[in-house]
Parts: sequence; structure tokens; C-alpha cells
Amino acid sequence: MNSENASISERIVSPSYIRQGCQARRTHEQLIRLLLEKGKCPEDGWDESTIELFLHELAIMDSNNFLGNCGVGEREGRVFSSLVARRHYRLIHGIGRSGDIAAIQPKAAGSSLLNRITNSVVLDMLKIAGVKTVSSCFVVPMATGMSLTLCFLTLRQKRPTGKYIIWPRIDQKSCFKSMITAGFEPVVIENLLEGDELQLGPENILCVHSTTSCFAPRVPDRLEELAMICDKYGIPHIVNNAYGVQSSKCMHLIQQGARIGRIDAFVQSLDKNFMVPVGGAIIAGFNESFVQEISRMYPGRASASPSLDVLITLLSMGSKGYRKLLQERKDTYTYLAEELKTLAEAHGERLLKTTHNPISLAMSLQGIDQQNDKAVTLLGSMLFTRQVSGARVVPLGNEQTVSGHVFKGFMSHATEYPCPYLNAAAAIGITKQDVDLCIKRLDKCLKNIKKENPAVISEDTLNEMAESFNEEMSDVLLFLGT
Amino acid sequence: MNSENASISERIVSPSYIRQGCQARRTHEQLIRLLLEKGKCPEDGWDESTIELFLHELAIMDSNNFLGNCGVGEREGRVFSSLVARRHYRLIHGIGRSGDIAAIQPKAAGSSLLNRITNSVVLDMLKIAGVKTVSSCFVVPMATGMSLTLCFLTLRQKRPTGKYIIWPRIDQKSCFKSMITAGFEPVVIENLLEGDELQLGPENILCVHSTTSCFAPRVPDRLEELAMICDKYGIPHIVNNAYGVQSSKCMHLIQQGARIGRIDAFVQSLDKNFMVPVGGAIIAGFNESFVQEISRMYPGRASASPSLDVLITLLSMGSKGYRKLLQERKDTYTYLAEELKTLAEAHGERLLKTTHNPISLAMSLQGIDQQNDKAVTLLGSMLFTRQVSGARVVPLGNEQTVSGHVFKGFMSHATEYPCPYLNAAAAIGITKQDVDLCIKRLDKCLKNIKKENPAVISEDTLNEMAESFNEEMSDVLLFLGT
Amino acid sequence: MNSENASISERIVSPSYIRQGCQARRTHEQLIRLLLEKGKCPEDGWDESTIELFLHELAIMDSNNFLGNCGVGEREGRVFSSLVARRHYRLIHGIGRSGDIAAIQPKAAGSSLLNRITNSVVLDMLKIAGVKTVSSCFVVPMATGMSLTLCFLTLRQKRPTGKYIIWPRIDQKSCFKSMITAGFEPVVIENLLEGDELQLGPENILCVHSTTSCFAPRVPDRLEELAMICDKYGIPHIVNNAYGVQSSKCMHLIQQGARIGRIDAFVQSLDKNFMVPVGGAIIAGFNESFVQEISRMYPGRASASPSLDVLITLLSMGSKGYRKLLQERKDTYTYLAEELKTLAEAHGERLLKTTHNPISLAMSLQGIDQQNDKAVTLLGSMLFTRQVSGARVVPLGNEQTVSGHVFKGFMSHATEYPCPYLNAAAAIGITKQDVDLCIKRLDKCLKNIKKENPAVISEDTLNEMAESFNEEMSDVLLFLGT
Amino acid sequence: MNSENASISERIVSPSYIRQGCQARRTHEQLIRLLLEKGKCPEDGWDESTIELFLHELAIMDSNNFLGNCGVGEREGRVFSSLVARRHYRLIHGIGRSGDIAAIQPKAAGSSLLNRITNSVVLDMLKIAGVKTVSSCFVVPMATGMSLTLCFLTLRQKRPTGKYIIWPRIDQKSCFKSMITAGFEPVVIENLLEGDELQLGPENILCVHSTTSCFAPRVPDRLEELAMICDKYGIPHIVNNAYGVQSSKCMHLIQQGARIGRIDAFVQSLDKNFMVPVGGAIIAGFNESFVQEISRMYPGRASASPSLDVLITLLSMGSKGYRKLLQERKDTYTYLAEELKTLAEAHGERLLKTTHNPISLAMSLQGIDQQNDKAVTLLGSMLFTRQVSGARVVPLGNEQTVSGHVFKGFMSHATEYPCPYLNAAAAIGITKQDVDLCIKRLDKCLKNIKKENPAVISEDTLNEMAESFNEEMSDVLLFLGT
Repeated sequence: MNSENASISERIVSPSYIRQGCQARRTHEQLIRLLLEKGKCPEDGWDESTIELFLHELAIMDSNNFLGNCGVGEREGRVFSSLVARRHYRLIHGIGRSGDIAAIQPKAAGSSLLNRITNSVVLDMLKIAGVKTVSSCFVVPMATGMSLTLCFLTLRQKRPTGKYIIWPRIDQKSCFKSMITAGFEPVVIENLLEGDELQLGPENILCVHSTTSCFAPRVPDRLEELAMICDKYGIPHIVNNAYGVQSSKCMHLIQQGARIGRIDAFVQSLDKNFMVPVGGAIIAGFNESFVQEISRMYPGRASASPSLDVLITLLSMGSKGYRKLLQERKDTYTYLAEELKTLAEAHGERLLKTTHNPISLAMSLQGIDQQNDKAVTLLGSMLFTRQVSGARVVPLGNEQTVSGHVFKGFMSHATEYPCPYLNAAAAIGITKQDVDLCIKRLDKCLKNIKKENPAVISEDTLNEMAESFNEEMSDVLLFLGT
Repeated sequence: MNSENASISERIVSPSYIRQGCQARRTHEQLIRLLLEKGKCPEDGWDESTIELFLHELAIMDSNNFLGNCGVGEREGRVFSSLVARRHYRLIHGIGRSGDIAAIQPKAAGSSLLNRITNSVVLDMLKIAGVKTVSSCFVVPMATGMSLTLCFLTLRQKRPTGKYIIWPRIDQKSCFKSMITAGFEPVVIENLLEGDELQLGPENILCVHSTTSCFAPRVPDRLEELAMICDKYGIPHIVNNAYGVQSSKCMHLIQQGARIGRIDAFVQSLDKNFMVPVGGAIIAGFNESFVQEISRMYPGRASASPSLDVLITLLSMGSKGYRKLLQERKDTYTYLAEELKTLAEAHGERLLKTTHNPISLAMSLQGIDQQNDKAVTLLGSMLFTRQVSGARVVPLGNEQTVSGHVFKGFMSHATEYPCPYLNAAAAIGITKQDVDLCIKRLDKCLKNIKKENPAVISEDTLNEMAESFNEEMSDVLLFLGT
Repeated sequence: MNSENASISERIVSPSYIRQGCQARRTHEQLIRLLLEKGKCPEDGWDESTIELFLHELAIMDSNNFLGNCGVGEREGRVFSSLVARRHYRLIHGIGRSGDIAAIQPKAAGSSLLNRITNSVVLDMLKIAGVKTVSSCFVVPMATGMSLTLCFLTLRQKRPTGKYIIWPRIDQKSCFKSMITAGFEPVVIENLLEGDELQLGPENILCVHSTTSCFAPRVPDRLEELAMICDKYGIPHIVNNAYGVQSSKCMHLIQQGARIGRIDAFVQSLDKNFMVPVGGAIIAGFNESFVQEISRMYPGRASASPSLDVLITLLSMGSKGYRKLLQERKDTYTYLAEELKTLAEAHGERLLKTTHNPISLAMSLQGIDQQNDKAVTLLGSMLFTRQVSGARVVPLGNEQTVSGHVFKGFMSHATEYPCPYLNAAAAIGITKQDVDLCIKRLDKCLKNIKKENPAVISEDTLNEMAESFNEEMSDVLLFLGT
Repeated sequence: MNSENASISERIVSPSYIRQGCQARRTHEQLIRLLLEKGKCPEDGWDESTIELFLHELAIMDSNNFLGNCGVGEREGRVFSSLVARRHYRLIHGIGRSGDIAAIQPKAAGSSLLNRITNSVVLDMLKIAGVKTVSSCFVVPMATGMSLTLCFLTLRQKRPTGKYIIWPRIDQKSCFKSMITAGFEPVVIENLLEGDELQLGPENILCVHSTTSCFAPRVPDRLEELAMICDKYGIPHIVNNAYGVQSSKCMHLIQQGARIGRIDAFVQSLDKNFMVPVGGAIIAGFNESFVQEISRMYPGRASASPSLDVLITLLSMGSKGYRKLLQERKDTYTYLAEELKTLAEAHGERLLKTTHNPISLAMSLQGIDQQNDKAVTLLGSMLFTRQVSGARVVPLGNEQTVSGHVFKGFMSHATEYPCPYLNAAAAIGITKQDVDLCIKRLDKCLKNIKKENPAVISEDTLNEMAESFNEEMSDVLLFLGT
């Protein structure tokens, strides 16, 4: 309520109450001021009232909410459904312009502010999470894979002769496809990067594409070494940090890599790190102009939805809240590791030693595999129907063709991994209760599988269970029985 | 309420009322059944109650809403903010999987249904809008430009030697950049496609990239001829149909082109055609497997937000409602043309004859340009501050460099257009009131400019006004004083 | 956004856009200013954006939304469920104080403003609807009946010897019970008020309790005559105007009655006149101090929900919108009368002549009643199950005891009405489509009843149907076959 | 999703996922089944998803949401504003019917279910809170005072000669006015009920009206003794248990009173006990038919809003959640008492010994009162402007006339209380942080008052501060300077 309206209100309700009400308003405005001024995540989370006030203030600055506007363009932010308008807080114009996804829209001062502030707050969070020297970032309404593609396409402009991307193998379709989609040929490094690979000649190498967060037993790439090599040979370096923001180890690797070597950009998922719906990523880097080049490669406007989600979320959390979540995740990771170890040993299995992987764990499934070759697959299926989501079994001997490239031992990141295993991860937001339920159900499944001879289960049932399991395993098609 | 709960309710409230209540529920379910069964937009729009019931039903089928779920994966659809959860109707898992943006997610049966049904309903709408033989389409949470880029990247896999894209010039940055971003070299056709251009050799041509909807005085490309040439030479053909769905003429061009020649895919904006927020596009085609290839090129999951928006909107509208909006747009276009003609003549200008452009109109600004060389720019600025959004003035002699390519006479689609002009469009959702307000304000601005000598206005004021105007003109940077 | 925050925003997004955004904000604020200043319903309805902004502004002035508040009282506006907080726009403190439902709450400047403005806007609407000289009113979160009770209880303080209420009979339980609940004895006037009734002695008469809106064939009381008698004998006069605001005739009666005679207060339902949920009423009168006395009789705070609903609704409608709804209702009344007349004649019945009743109509059911004595009841039941809601059949010969008083011919407002009949009303919000559907279904039911001999229908079925019908008939318990 | 629609969905998305989705739905339905079957508050709170599903299911059973309904009655549940419809979850018909606020509405099976279930769940909560033998209750959309009035009005029908209400004094306007409004004469008992008061003759006594929850230093009435006297003399007994549900002591008093004596009804506030918005109360008793009589006294339908709020809230909390809140309140009460004691002693004051009052505390203000006679008032004002809400100062010597009755020493429940004091309460939902902030601010205020001589403060300032303080003190008008 502006001062004029407050004055009139004082005639209706007694002045001292109105004055106190206006003073209360100013405390909300003060929070908004701090946000605008500092561009940082508030330490204490805002309450919903302040958040909605802020979004409302932004929305009425967009031309589609001007009371006197007349629109004769081809895009006027008209919305048919009030359900849709409301769910977007009437911020309809998206973010960016034709030229640049980070640009300001004349028709939408509010949406533009939203975009700028979101990017600024997210940058602050990346620093808090461990990459202190990151200089620029932007939220892009595409998932991690497509965001990596955009990075590679940007590099193409700078390295027209680049044809190959050096890629330490990680068995996850999106990151492999991100290179294919961009039109490059991945050079798959089965183990560590060896010098002789560079026979390709640096000028034909578009970049190195490394990974931090990944399923155990794979561990993050040795980013420092890779970054130093890249620096030495003048090869760009893009890091897939999909769900690494939640881990101080992953963030530290990036920080160190950039300090002693070369990292051009690192890409992370919004949903996996910030507890928002699927659909956005953050592209960040140490050189502001390169990050801007990437943002300018996105041709056209884009959805503001992921930006809106992450902004609401971070304002709700506050940086304190985020730090707390990070700590809880770390603690739950330790707890999960202990529980899984105990369970594994009780069943004659073991927790694989993957101390460098700070998020994902793996437990061997040697025993039940020896009992019956379909048992590992069956276990996956059983867990799925028992609502243990995200637990993932990896049998031996899969072969998978992705975009023409044959991966032996697919899912295990290696041609021949010694044993089948089961993955479980402690990702942000996980609770002790999740772990307890998972361990309990897993224990029950393992007992059932051992007790009954799976060979007795009819072929049909097995196939059906296995089929649903196959689809569940998010990036894999298993050919059972091969 | 299932039958068991209804039975119990009959003990609480008299049975005949509960029975009538349950029967009423069945009418909602019947609507949902028809949607699922036919996969088509209902003829009569649904009310909000049915829509929200349906979305609620979908949401509880996703694992993040399972009451007994325990999640130990790296992506579990956890959402921190209840504001965010609610605004997405608790549909958090996005759409697609690593392998394919149109694929089913095991963790999210509801989101998967949403995705499938949306694509199916949107396909139905494209048919209703005029492309009767379209065989497949999908909603992609990227704006038109990036969606075109995805099409080009898909074609690269099929035509590895293709380097050039034949592109009849249209002065809009996104479509030009969509080719650059994909790593190709546009061959800009200043006028019509001439045979000699094909000296490039068909094998080096990735595709032809044509346009339907565009600012007047440019008119849609002659799609039939282009499609026939593409067919003859075996060259793929991608159509930028940005805001063409709302025009039966544009849709007819595509339908005809595909019938007698070759069109591989056509891409259209969601927001410009269906009155939803910015952020989504539809990629459609006549060959289902090619459309699928494109969808598989998108590496990773993606935001469900644009799908959700368009589904809610189409279910609200019903096909009747959409047809009505299309008819109203057509009528308002005629009305706008008449009013603009009258106004133009009153000011000694004329409505440019662009009968083939069914959406955008242009009125000459010869007179005020002769009076003062900054007057055209000033007019744009005046309209902007008077909340006439979307009206766009095009002065003579702009030169603009986009991604290294120099465009003379930028904005006018031609190196030397004979006169400066002003654009106004009748896009879907426009009202008679918009037209009236625009004409009234435009009239006033023109009178003011003529009355006062703009030369007298101080340089500073002019520059400031012009600057804001420049930014407003969405895809252009004008260099004043040239 | 206050000016300080706007200034900071100008550093983030270009100043001219922010300035335009702030100007746009001012147009919303201007609307709010006009509302606060005039206290009248805006002529043009506000859009949802302005309404929600206004409610948000009010909410942050309440102490439960103060960011720095600490509460150590017994009522602090704490809300457990965010669903609940949100649905009340975080306005939690209700309206009024112990002393007066219209009083200001120190803890809740926003809620207090809401309350004041609502009462002011509603007063404006009563004037618009026809009672131009009404001087005061307030919204009370109780339905019409309980609000009448409150009026009677207030009168008791002023007329301690009053024991009787003169009440021209209208067969609707609530209004009868409103007197019983207040502890008075109704003197039921079967026909018109006759002089001899006044033998009671004016000092023992608490008041006259008259009625405007009612089911046909009863027509509104002759308010002018009643008001003149009341004036002459110094007897208070309370008018039950339940759904009369929507009819200019009813409102005119009140205006005239007050002009030439005495009307102390008139009470009307919020939901029946203003299309809001059930639960509120307006108590209005011509003497401000008496209306205040009534408001002070309500002991304690009260729900703000009905006030909030009616304020949102009236701001959405605008006075223009309300006038339009009133006109449409009038037109639909005429249409319903015509259609019902045609249908009646086609079935050998007639539309009862009740020209003084401006809302409710009645059609005789002589024919089917003569055919079978349960047919009338059966018709009601059939209409209910066919989702014709609100149509009400009135058989002959009902006897009903309400709070000890025996009503012969209950529902028909008369001891012996000549024929059974069916009621249908044209209330605010009714559409032509409602009428068409009703006529069509009624026609079908009548044909069915005539075709098949209802006597053949098993006793059980009939009883069951009749039972559900009985319950449906909102204020009646029929004793079938008695 | 019903089974038919699920089957169709299995053709769209793979059957095993749909099946899992449907199974997940059943867990929600199972919760609903338990609620309907048991009519009790679930132990574990429901999540918002289940709550909204349930409300949605209820809403579509109401005729205003029937897709094929045509309405020709005078009340059809039409709602103009979609904001309003949505905030009520489209439950528009309110609760009850003309005859009975607890009755079923034929037009609204869903709302009727809501009403019944709410009353049932609330009854369960009263038992959990300590009144184990309560047999019936209903939620009424009126605040405590008006609900008490309704109880008295009901008693009038049973005791037509009753004129007086025996009322142990408690200085809160609402409860005094509740008797006046009902038309009775309160017999104010300054101390405890003495035998000689009964000289009135039991037949002229309508009832005894006793109190549990109240501001310290007053303590709850000795309910057991009162109940035994009432039993002995056959006098009805109504208990004002305004915010007593949150205290096991208050509830125990009622339980004991009913066991060994007579309690006809006890009335409690919804907002003060269950953290919902202001506007509802619960009328409960030990004799089902008497409670029903009260509910039948409410003439007409009523707002469902308070029922909806409390149902949502209790389903969210679960009984576990409520028990936890009760325990936390108790603990915070102890904490507040300790902190206040420490503070009081530091300032030379003392915490009044009021061990029987389980919610409210009082600290003497002897010292500052002696310093300056306006200082106590000033302290109240200072606390108000420092956003300490609910803290209430009670100076000596107030005299207040309420509805003609003069109360000496008003606010202190006694004609001459020995010292002025300050109240603070630990009500449900209070946090340790509230206490800390209150103590800190109070400390500061006391120091300031002592430091500066309030006499020096200008008369105007003082008056203004005092005035705002007066209004703040919710049930009091102080005459300063008397």
C-alpha cells in the first residue's frame, strides 16, 4: 500500500494501526531490498507471504498485466486459462530475447528482473556450495544433457576444426547423447586419460568432457589432472556436474581444477541439486564472456518456469536452510553406508569400496547371481514393485548400443566389472526414514530370493518382472539371457 | 470416491444423495475416459473442476506422491517448497527419459500419461487448424528457435556432408541463429529461390529452411514451390511456422506443400498459437519415424511445464473454443486492416498491400520520415510509453550484423525497402478493444509528431526515447543517426 | 515495489522499463485508492491481479503476518495448515471485536479495513439495487434466519414487554424459527393484516416481521401498508428480504415502505443475491444507530469469510457487472414464464397468475394429481434424480408442525390452496440454458407420468422415491398418504 | 482414476506402471476409507495431496458441480468469482438446512459428508484432549460468544420461567454479552458461588454459566462444585471453555464436573484451540439430544468455512501432531513462567502465584505504577508498537460499563485487585522464540520506562500512545486519568 492509500486508510481504520501495518510492510520490502541490492540468497528463508508479495510485484511490471495495455504484436503474453495464469503468478513472458536468453525484455520488466535475480542468487549458491571463484552462470530451461549440447555447440564456433570430444566413460545415456546431438564424435576413454590418446591432435579435439557425480563404483574423474592437461594443450574442458552441487567433494574438484588448470564450463541439474521439478540446468564458468557466449547461443526466448521454481525454493530455504540440507545429506550418506555394509555382510555380500564417490554406493550381489542368473534382475523388479525407487541393480555382461556406439558391460562403466551389484544413493532431501525403509525392504527381498528358488518361478512371471525392471532402470535396455 | 468409500458414505449421508453424487462423479470420469480413449481435444471445454480432478489423478500415480515410497536414487522428485509443488500440481518428474523426450518414465506413470495425451491432443489441434495429414508431433520445452536447432542437428546425423541451409531471408534473429547454433552456414536468399543457387550441390545442402508466419510486408514463402524443389532434389525441408497455427492460410500452405512436395518437419510456438506462457514449441511432421528421431535427439528429461500449460488450456477451450478464437482473430484482422487503412489515409499514408500475409499488417510512414529523420524512431518510442505493445516501426537503412552476417535494411526483410513503415498484427486473443485503443493512440501520436517539430525536441530526450525504443524492438539494434 | 526498491531495480534492468513497470503499478494503486476513498463498488470489475494485490496488501498489515512479531496472547492468528492460510489470503483474525462485529481490531489493521470496506461497498450495492435511502448495513457471517434472530434480540432490549411478533404467513422454516429461537411467539397472519389482530396491544408486540421474496403463488407482503401501520402504532418493523436484492420490485417495496412508513431493518442473504457461498447475510436499515446496536449485539469476533467472498465478488463484477446480471435475471424470468406457460398449456395445466412475484413462478399440477394421488410427489422425485435442482412440487393437504405450531397446507402458504403446483424460479445467475434443460426434462417427466400408470409402480419404489423427494424439498417433511 | 480409465491408460503407458500408479491411489483411498469408517482423526497427519483429493471428491458430489445440472431454485450454489470458488474447493452449499445446522442437504451430498465427518473428528479430538465421555458436538460458524447465546436461547425453550444466569465474574466482554444478547440478566458472582445466591429460586435461574480458560490471576471456576450444586438444584450448567481444549487441566475439570455433577454443554473456540482462522466454535455436551436441540435452534443454513478449516487442519496434524502441539504448549508454558519470574525479580516485581491457571500468567507492575500513574498504560503501548502482541497490561481502578452493568476494577476480574500487572499466555502454537523475543522486548521497555521519567513525555504523546493501547486491549475501554 503506497503512502497515499495508507493516508486514506487512516481515515477508515485508526491511524496508529495503519501505521503499524505499513511499518510491517516495510520489513517485507526491506527483505526485497536486500535481495535486489546484494543479489544473494538471504541467509534465513523468507516466508511464503514475502515470496508471493515479491512475485506479485514483479508480475504487475510485465506488460501483459498493464491495466491500460493494448497489444498488436504477435506475442502479447495473453493467457487463456486462469489456472495457467495463476500457476505462473501471471509471469507469462518467459525469459530472454531472441538474441540472448539472459537479455532483458522490454515488454516484461518484472520477468527480466526475475531472470537476473535468479541467476545472481544461483551464482551465490554455487559459491556457497564450494566453487568460490565461479564468475558467472545462468539458469537454462533445459535438462543437463541438452545444456551440455549447448556448450559443445558454442565451442564449435570457436574451434571450427574440432571433431572429437574426449570423454572418460560413464554409463549414462544423456551425457553420451549430448555429444552426439551436438554433432561430435566421442572418444571414449575406458580408464584414465592416457597421453597417447592425444595423437588425435589438439586441433581436432573440441574439448574434454569430464564427469563428477556418477553411480558407484565409478568415482568422479580426476579433474585436477584433466584440467592441467587441458590447460597444457589448450583444449577446452566442459564438466558434467549433474548432481554434484550437493556434494562439497564434487564442488571442490571443480574449484581445484579451475585453479590449477582449465575448466571452461560446468553444468548441473536444477532438480537434482535444488529440489525443484525436472526441467532446468545451470551453466556456469570462470570466464564471464564465455558463459555469455553460451547464453547467446540459445536462439530465442525460453520458459521462466525453472527459474521461478529455483528462485522460490532458494528464497524459502535461505542459505542456512541449504547448508542444513547439505549437512543432512552428508550424514545420511554415512548412515546409508553403514546400514548397507551391515546388511551386505549379513547376506554374505560386501559394500564396494568407493570412498571417492560421495553420493552413490554399491553393494555386491555375487551370491544371488551365482544361485540363478536371473536373480539380480529379479531383485530389481521386486524392489520396484515394493516402492523402493532409485535402487538400481547392475547385472554382468550387458551390452548396449547407444547412437551406434557399442558399450560392453553397460551400466557398470566398465567392459568387465568383477561382480554384479546394487546401487543406492544419498541425494539431497533423503531422510533417515528412506534409508530404514529401503534396508528393511531390501533385506526382505534378498531373503525371499534366497529362500525360494527363482528357477522355479515361471518363465512368464520372470520375464514380466524383468521387463518392468528393465524399463525402470532409467538409462538401460537389458537383453535378458544374452 | 471408489465404491467402497461410497458405501461407507451411504451410512453417513442418505444413500440416494450419495448415489447421485457418485453418478455425478461418473460424468467427470466419462469425460476423462473419452480423452484417454480418443486422444483428442474435447469439443466442449472442460470446467476447472474436471481438469483439476484429472491432474490430481495423474499426480498420485507418480512415485513422488506414493505414500509408502522410499527413494534412494539421485532423482526422486522431492520438492522443497510447497508453493512450487502446488503450482506444478505435484507433477514433478518432468517428461521423457534420457533416451527420448517422448518416452515413458517408470517412476512417473502419471507424468508419462500427461506427456502422451498432450502430444496426442496437440496433434489433433494441428489437424483441426488445417494440416490434416500431419502424422506425429511432440511438445518440446524449448522455444521455436531452439526447436529448429534440434531439427537441424537431427538432420546432421542423416546428412553428414550437409553444411549449408537454404534460407529465404526473414529478419528475425531467432530463426537465423537457430542455424548458426546448430553449426551450419545459412545461404540467405534475398528474394525467391533461384535455380542457380543449387550450384552448391544438393549433397552439401543440409536442408531448406522456410517460413510461413512473418512480419508484413514480407509474406509467407511459396511453400508449394519450395516443397516441390526439395522433393525433386532430395533435400530435406524444415518449415518455421512460428505463429502460423492460428492462421488457416499458413496451415494450408504446409498441408499443400506436404501433399505435392516435401516437408520433413514444421515447428511452431506454443505461446504464440495457444495462449500459454513462453517456453514451448511443437515439432511436427508427416513421417512418424523422423519426428521420433528428433525427439530422441533431445538428450535427457525435460520440463513438463509447457505440456501441462497447453493441456490445461486445450481442455479448457475445447476444440469449439479454439475454432471460435481462430474465427475471432480472422475477423479482428479484417477490422484492424480497415481501421489502419482509414487512419493511414487520414494521415496521407497508406496501408501496404500485403494480402498474402494473414496476420501482420504494415502502414507506410513516408510523411513523417520526410519531415524529420528521427521521427519514425520517435513514433516507436511514443507508442511504447503509451502502452501500445507489439506495434513496431521500421525505419529505412538499418544495417545489422547477426552472428557475423551483415543484413542491410534489417527488419524490413529486404536490402532496400522503398519506405519506412509500422507493423501491427492481429494475433490470437486480440480484441476489438485492442484495435480501437491502438488506433486511437497511434492517431494521437501521429498528430503530435506532425504538430510539433521533433527537431526542436532536445537531443537528449530524443536519444533516450529512441534508446528505449531500440530495446523494445525485439530483435533489432538500431544505430541512430545513420 | 516501493520507490527505493524500484531505484535498485533500475540498476539491474534498464530504467525505462522499470519506470514503465512502476507506472503500471500505480494504475492498480489508483484503483485501490478510489475504492478506499469512495467506499463504493468500482463501476468496472477489477481483474484478479488487482484483487489479489489488494488482499495481499491488507494481509501484511495484520499482526500474524508481521515478520518480527512475537505473540503471547491467547489468540494470535497462528494457522497450522498452509492450505488454510492460503485459502484465507492469510487474513486470519476475522472481523470485529468482543464489543462489536463492526469494530476495528488493533491486531489486524488489514482485516479491519477489509471489514469496513466490505460493509461500505455492500451498502453501495443496496442503493444501486433500489433502496436509495438505506443509511447503514453490515455483513454478518450468519445466514438470513440467524440474522433475523439477532434483529429480534436487539429489539428485545428496546421493548422489554414485547412478546409477540406479527408475521404474515410464509411457509419457510427458517423465518419461522428465527422468531422462536429469539424466544418470541409468532402471531401468524393467514391472509392480510387485519386491524383486530392488534387487540394484542402494541406494547406486547415486539415487531412486525414481513417478507418480500418468497415462493409463488405467494407474493411479497404489501410493505407500504404494513410500514404505515407500524408507523402509526409505533411498532418496529423487520423485513425478511432473503433473496430480494436481485429484484428491483422487492427493493422498491422496501424503499417505499421506509419512505411513507416505518421499516427498522431489512435482512438479506449474501449467497442468494451475490453469488457467493452460503453463510452470510446483510443487515441493513435506515437508522444508523439502530443498525449499530444490532452489530453490537453480536457477542465476539466473527468469521471474515463471507465478507471476503462478497468483497472479492463485487470487485470482480463491478457495479456494471451486477446491473447486467440483474437485467439478465429479469429477462430470463420472462423467458421462464413464457416457456412454462407454453408447457403448462400443452399438458392441460396453467401457469398460475402471480404477477406480483418477480422471481418465483408456479404451474398447476391438477391433471396428474387427479390421475393418481402420489403422482405429484413422484414428479418431484423424478426431477430430482434428473438433476433439475430447485424445482419444487407442492401437493395438497400437507400438515406440518414447526416448533409446536401446526401449519395446514404447509408449503403452499395457505390452509387450503385450490390446486397442487410446481415452483420454478429465475434467480440471479440463471441462464437460458438452465431454463431450456428444465423445460425439456419437465416435459419428459410429465409425459412419462401420464403414459405409465404410477399406480402400477411398486409401493416400495414409490416410497423410496417419495422419501428422497421429501428430503429434497428443502423445508418440508411430507407425510405421504396421510 | 476408475478401473475403466486405468485400463485405457494401460494402452498408453505400460501396464505395470499404471498398475503401480493405481495401487498408489488405493493407499490414498484407504486413508479416506478409514476416516469415513471410524470418523476419527487419523493418527498420522495426511499430506496435502490426500487432503485435496478428498475435498475434490466431496465437491464433485455437490449439485453445483454436476456437469448436467440445471437449476431453477432460488439457491443453486452458483459462484461468480473463480477466486472464491477455488478458495472454497468448490464446496458452496454451506452446511445444514433450515431445520437443523447438522442436517443433510439433498443438493449437497459432499458438503453434508464434510459436515458430518468434521463433527465426528472434532468429537474425537475433544475426547483426546481429555473429556472422554463427551457424547456429541457440532461445529458452528459463530464465535464462542454467539455460540453461548445459542445455548441460552435453547435453554429458554426448556425453562420458560428462567430469567437469570448465575455467572462467576470474568472480565471479558463477549461472555457477558452472550447472556445479555440472549435476553437474560446475569447475576454476577464476585467471588465463589455462595448458597444464599440461590434465594433467586431455581425456577427463575436459566442456568449457571461458568468459565475454564481465562486471564490470570483469575483461575478456572471450581467446576466440580458448581456442577454438583447444579445437579442438586436441577439447574442447567453451561461452561465457557473458550480456549480450554488446549489445556488438559481445563478439560479434566469438565470431565470431572460432568462425572460427579451436571454440565449441559461446553463451548469452545475453534481458532483458539485448533489454529484456524477466527469464526467458529464447538458446542459439545454429554447428552446427545440436548446438543441436537441446540443445533436445531440455529435457523437456516450456515457457512461451511470453519468446518472446512478445522477438517483440513486436523487431517494435516493427525492426532499425533495435536498431542505434540499440546505437549509443546505445556513445556513452553513452563518456560514462559520461568523466564517471566526471572525477569520480574530482576525488576523488583514478582510473578503472581496462579498455579491453577494453566495457560495465562501475570507479573506484577507495582514498581513502575508507583513511579508514575500512567506508566502501566504506557508500557502496554510500548509493547504494542514493538510488535509484542497479546501482552496485556492491567492498571488499577478501571471502571467499565458493559450493557448497563458497571464493573469496578474491570479487566482484573475483581473490584479491587492489590496491584497492576501484565498478562502473557502460552497458547497453542507458541514457540520458545516467541517467549525469548517477548522477554527481551519487555525487559527493554521496563528499563526505558524506569530510566526516563514518563512524566516528561508530552501529554499528547502519552495520550496517543495510551489511546492506541486502549484499543489494543481487546475487551476494554480505559478511561485514562480517572
